[in-house]
Amino acid sequence: MDLNALLTSAGINIGVSVALISLYSILRKQPSNLNVYFGRRIASERVRRLDPLCFDRFVPSPSWIVKAWETSEEEIMFVGGMDAVVFLRILVFSIRIFSIAAIICLFLVLPVNYYGQEMPHKQIPSESLEVFTIGNVKEGSKWLWAHCLALYIISFAACILLYFEYKSISKMRLGHIIGSPPKPSHFAILVRAIPWLSGESYSDTLTKFFTNYYASSYLSHQMVYRSGTVQKLMSDAEKMIKMLTADYPDHAHKPCLIPSGCCGGSVNEFKILSREETVKENVKETAGFADLGVASRDKECPAAFVFFKTRYAAFLAAQVLQSSNPMLWVTELAPEKNDLLWSNISIPYKQLWLRKIATLLAAIVFMFVFLIPVTLVQGLTQLEQLAQALPFLRGFLSKKFINQLVTGYLPSVILMLFLYTVPPTMMLFSTVEGSVSHSGRKKSACLKVLYFNIWNVFFVNVLSGSILKQLNAFSSVRDIPAILARAVPTQASFFMTYVLTSGWASLSCELMQIFPLFCNVVKKFILRIKEDSPCNLTFPYHTEVPRVLVFGLLGFTCSIMAPLILPFLLIYFILANLIYRNQILHVYESKYDSGGQYWPVVHNATIFSLVLTQIIALGVFGIKRSPVASGFTIPLVILTLLFNEYCRQRFKPTFKQIAAQILIEMDRHDEICGRMEDIYRQLHSAYCQFALTSQDFCKAGNMNEGDRNIQDPEAINPRVKLET
Amino acid sequence: MDLNALLTSAGINIGVSVALISLYSILRKQPSNLNVYFGRRIASERVRRLDPLCFDRFVPSPSWIVKAWETSEEEIMFVGGMDAVVFLRILVFSIRIFSIAAIICLFLVLPVNYYGQEMPHKQIPSESLEVFTIGNVKEGSKWLWAHCLALYIISFAACILLYFEYKSISKMRLGHIIGSPPKPSHFAILVRAIPWLSGESYSDTLTKFFTNYYASSYLSHQMVYRSGTVQKLMSDAEKMIKMLTADYPDHAHKPCLIPSGCCGGSVNEFKILSREETVKENVKETAGFADLGVASRDKECPAAFVFFKTRYAAFLAAQVLQSSNPMLWVTELAPEKNDLLWSNISIPYKQLWLRKIATLLAAIVFMFVFLIPVTLVQGLTQLEQLAQALPFLRGFLSKKFINQLVTGYLPSVILMLFLYTVPPTMMLFSTVEGSVSHSGRKKSACLKVLYFNIWNVFFVNVLSGSILKQLNAFSSVRDIPAILARAVPTQASFFMTYVLTSGWASLSCELMQIFPLFCNVVKKFILRIKEDSPCNLTFPYHTEVPRVLVFGLLGFTCSIMAPLILPFLLIYFILANLIYRNQILHVYESKYDSGGQYWPVVHNATIFSLVLTQIIALGVFGIKRSPVASGFTIPLVILTLLFNEYCRQRFKPTFKQIAAQILIEMDRHDEICGRMEDIYRQLHSAYCQFALTSQDFCKAGNMNEGDRNIQDPEAINPRVKLET
Repeated sequence: MDLNALLTSAGINIGVSVALISLYSILRKQPSNLNVYFGRRIASERVRRLDPLCFDRFVPSPSWIVKAWETSEEEIMFVGGMDAVVFLRILVFSIRIFSIAAIICLFLVLPVNYYGQEMPHKQIPSESLEVFTIGNVKEGSKWLWAHCLALYIISFAACILLYFEYKSISKMRLGHIIGSPPKPSHFAILVRAIPWLSGESYSDTLTKFFTNYYASSYLSHQMVYRSGTVQKLMSDAEKMIKMLTADYPDHAHKPCLIPSGCCGGSVNEFKILSREETVKENVKETAGFADLGVASRDKECPAAFVFFKTRYAAFLAAQVLQSSNPMLWVTELAPEKNDLLWSNISIPYKQLWLRKIATLLAAIVFMFVFLIPVTLVQGLTQLEQLAQALPFLRGFLSKKFINQLVTGYLPSVILMLFLYTVPPTMMLFSTVEGSVSHSGRKKSACLKVLYFNIWNVFFVNVLSGSILKQLNAFSSVRDIPAILARAVPTQASFFMTYVLTSGWASLSCELMQIFPLFCNVVKKFILRIKEDSPCNLTFPYHTEVPRVLVFGLLGFTCSIMAPLILPFLLIYFILANLIYRNQILHVYESKYDSGGQYWPVVHNATIFSLVLTQIIALGVFGIKRSPVASGFTIPLVILTLLFNEYCRQRFKPTFKQIAAQILIEMDRHDEICGRMEDIYRQLHSAYCQFALTSQDFCKAGNMNEGDRNIQDPEAINPRVKLET
Repeated sequence: MDLNALLTSAGINIGVSVALISLYSILRKQPSNLNVYFGRRIASERVRRLDPLCFDRFVPSPSWIVKAWETSEEEIMFVGGMDAVVFLRILVFSIRIFSIAAIICLFLVLPVNYYGQEMPHKQIPSESLEVFTIGNVKEGSKWLWAHCLALYIISFAACILLYFEYKSISKMRLGHIIGSPPKPSHFAILVRAIPWLSGESYSDTLTKFFTNYYASSYLSHQMVYRSGTVQKLMSDAEKMIKMLTADYPDHAHKPCLIPSGCCGGSVNEFKILSREETVKENVKETAGFADLGVASRDKECPAAFVFFKTRYAAFLAAQVLQSSNPMLWVTELAPEKNDLLWSNISIPYKQLWLRKIATLLAAIVFMFVFLIPVTLVQGLTQLEQLAQALPFLRGFLSKKFINQLVTGYLPSVILMLFLYTVPPTMMLFSTVEGSVSHSGRKKSACLKVLYFNIWNVFFVNVLSGSILKQLNAFSSVRDIPAILARAVPTQASFFMTYVLTSGWASLSCELMQIFPLFCNVVKKFILRIKEDSPCNLTFPYHTEVPRVLVFGLLGFTCSIMAPLILPFLLIYFILANLIYRNQILHVYESKYDSGGQYWPVVHNATIFSLVLTQIIALGVFGIKRSPVASGFTIPLVILTLLFNEYCRQRFKPTFKQIAAQILIEMDRHDEICGRMEDIYRQLHSAYCQFALTSQDFCKAGNMNEGDRNIQDPEAINPRVKLET
């Protein structure tokens, strides 16, 4: 590939991106697309409907870019939660580090590479891209110190930036915890594996245990019921009501069916929490389900939510081993109500370790055998075989244009389609794994997708692109640096096009929301449904975090080998920053939040990228016979690993536990404010299992502290200053 | 090596062992050796001096064997602590599993091997040992199912035994915790990295913190002081007093010097805790040190012992993250007073992670480069070189007998001498690592020695004995099973002689206590010192546990390959059981106890041995072209690993934490008995730093609940029945 081709490709991609972004800026102004592009805002606030006939609607405008740019971190925090802020921090970190890398590498490393006198030079435009890589530097060249120096600067800059990011994010997390209003999840723990004593219900056993050992802090509890027939009938009834009330277009006031027997009370009836009395008549038929309350009693799971009087007591109960048999009375902090994955709570605790091992193995197998079906199907796209399999296509396929199209695009389309199945598959694995919260499941899926991407995007490409196509590549551990060192520079041009196509294109697709847009069009113009139900999407961290991190990996590994990739990457990150900001502000709802748990993942992935870069550099310096540069790289690897260990010691625990100091202070603050009684009252109805299917409508009936201070984001998130 | 040679070697070793054991049974009756062979009993009880002139003294008798055999587990627990019981359980477990293995392998596998028709048979006595190994079975033989079946039986038996042992030991640990009398360590935590606030002493900062956050449970604290000049002077003063009072031969009543300023009080004076007023005059000179109390104030470390009102409160405070900066206010449960390693407490907490990494790396490097100097020195023993280096020896070395002796024995002697340096080196590493307790340091050293032994005894021998002498052996991961499978059967005869010589000989040496005996002889008959100071040895778990586990590893890996090793191993374990019982009863003192923390190490090592055996079997079945047997072995590996994971889930947490239930019950029990006030009083003087150098003498002045119920071991350790 020569420079000309690269620039052409870049030009085409820039053109496509600009066109799509302009298209977006028109589409977003169409009232019919409101629920595609403003899903979050429809769900949380009433959006002003635009004037239907206005010239402005058909002119692309950059106003949304300005808006996205100007949005402050506090606003993002309020709108998208801590996770959204952390995600944007990844982008900001990437922009910073790759700006530094770009400056160093373009002004120091690139000239050294270009004047390296290993390959013959041509005219600049038709110069091969290989000339710009480290492959052009002569063996034993004295100029390799430039690469080594650049590696040092990049590594140190990355570590310093990582340190300050980790520090600031753990501080932010702390502030987030301190500043958040009292939530039921702060006072609740999830108890699993309650032992079965004959003659007693789980509820009685639990009451006895906690009144005995936690007499001073135990408040109440709520059993989890098996989600079986009862819940199914409940959700059917729910749907019926929904249909019956479909004529009332005001979403916020929909009724909600709650069996009060399982919400702290003891009456075996359902109550309709509705503000409109008009619905009541339609619903009276559903009173027939009342008897089911009794049935649900028999279906108690050995799991329950236990509420405590203080946050600190709940936290202690969640931390400590309760019984001398570690498989009984297993406690953990309860997730927030919206974050709960009810279906997984009733999984017997004893199964969990088996499920974890099974899904881990399944994910590893999936990772390694993924390419086999893909290559097989891609092999099928050989036209001869296709023509043989489907003889009636023979005439059609013999046309040259069709031939080119099919052989040129079909393999990559098939690969793309297969790749799209990866995040849902990993999500499925994470569901089977048994996580009890949506956010935990998403984080687990994120890790799986990350490993998958690093393996299949980076290593498989690097190794299959090089001479060694077999898995044998890894048979000899000591040769890895040399193999990678030979492979990475030759693959640099592929990675550049990967950034151009997959990176930039994915951003445009993300912005356009192609799939929801398509659904919307089908619904509105083909099915003719007029109702504007918002899409209610949550931010897909499990696909986007790995994507960004893999681009980071490409950036680091290519930086000193083939610095030409850096400008393209930088454009990607800047664009991503703007686009994701916009999407967080307008499209995605934040129903649940992990509280910044993605940052340790990002930190580790970045350290991995750095160390991999250094190891590859070691290999390159070895190949180029520069013992001095190799010698200087080894301490760099050690220093980076030590830095990582230090960060693990210094920051990681705050992402796993909350400090006693903080919790006690929060409890005291609430007590001084006299809010405790208020909180206790809310706890009773906090974790209401059977309203699950209609949780969006139930919000009005249950706690709604999330909406309380909606006007003032900063009042809800006061940045508390802490000495850390 | 043929059968004849093996039997001769076994005969010689049996003869030597019997001779040494008989010698021991005479030596132990000599009054002059009392302090060598009855060190523990001298230290803890008054031993009846034997009649000096009695014929019986010079006749070997097996009475000690009977005594050792009859000792119950409760007695061992009382005398040697939980760790001694766990150690003997390793031996009992080994006897059980290798009895099963011996029966299966000698009656099922050995005939199959012998009649395998691969090698030519000779007369039984001069039959090569190789004939008895799996090497004699033909390729593709249908009889390999016998090996596979034996492997299954051994693996399942081992897992079942391991499960019940783990269960019973965790129950015993629980009983030990519940049954132990109230100890200061139950109520104390060790706080490190107390932040430095200008204008305040560490003590004030700590008081503020704990009275603020642990107001209801905080009792008092005691700072740790830098061990510098003060302590040195203190110990000098101590020695002086010891010298001055040397004329008073009654050990138990020696005086003890305690600066009361650091023992909870505030008076800057030293008190002499002595029951004999006669000593006082001699000591009055030491009052000059009184001013040093003030100096010690300025030398506070950022570390302290904090005492709580209940065990549960102390445990919670040790478990929880205290501050939002995880590098400050680091808490852990305090070790018992005798277990404390004072020198390591003042290490700044921030250094610990670095020290851990450094010692880990040092240990790994030591493990790999250990053989290099050994081979070099062994190379020097080539007589020509020696003669060249030291020309005056030339005549001496040219004699044939000397020549044989030097070339035959010197290399192995050098190897042995180098091997003796391993445990002290590992102990040194563990000290540098920064463990705050003797037991923790010993366990850490035990792990290091274990890895070292597994590597240097098993792998280095197996791999250097086979064709592949280079480290390249491990370049290809997939070939490992095949390489091991080829190497292990050929090395079986070496391992047999290793068991005979190193195993049996080490037991005889252990029994004879050669080094202390030698010291004693030198002291009594050359230096003419008459005083009988006991040796005060603690059981060397860090050398003995790895030794036994490595023999277990040899047993498992050789069992189906070369079953002839099993009888010798069985004899070793039975002998070891008797001898170590005797040593625990008579020789070693138990100053500190880890509470059975060695069992998880043993469990993991055994699982490792099992899986390694299965992998080697997989390789063997591969070489012998038996796909069925290979196919059946793979699920066995998976099942073993799953079993291990289950045990980790089920039992491991009880070795890391103590269940809340247990602690709360213990606290309640004490409260009901009205012992709390008593305990609180004792806490004040519990961790007295500067009495360290004379802790043995201080015992009388401090708590002595260990001696309280000395008559009735079962009263001290009531076996509490728990539902686990």
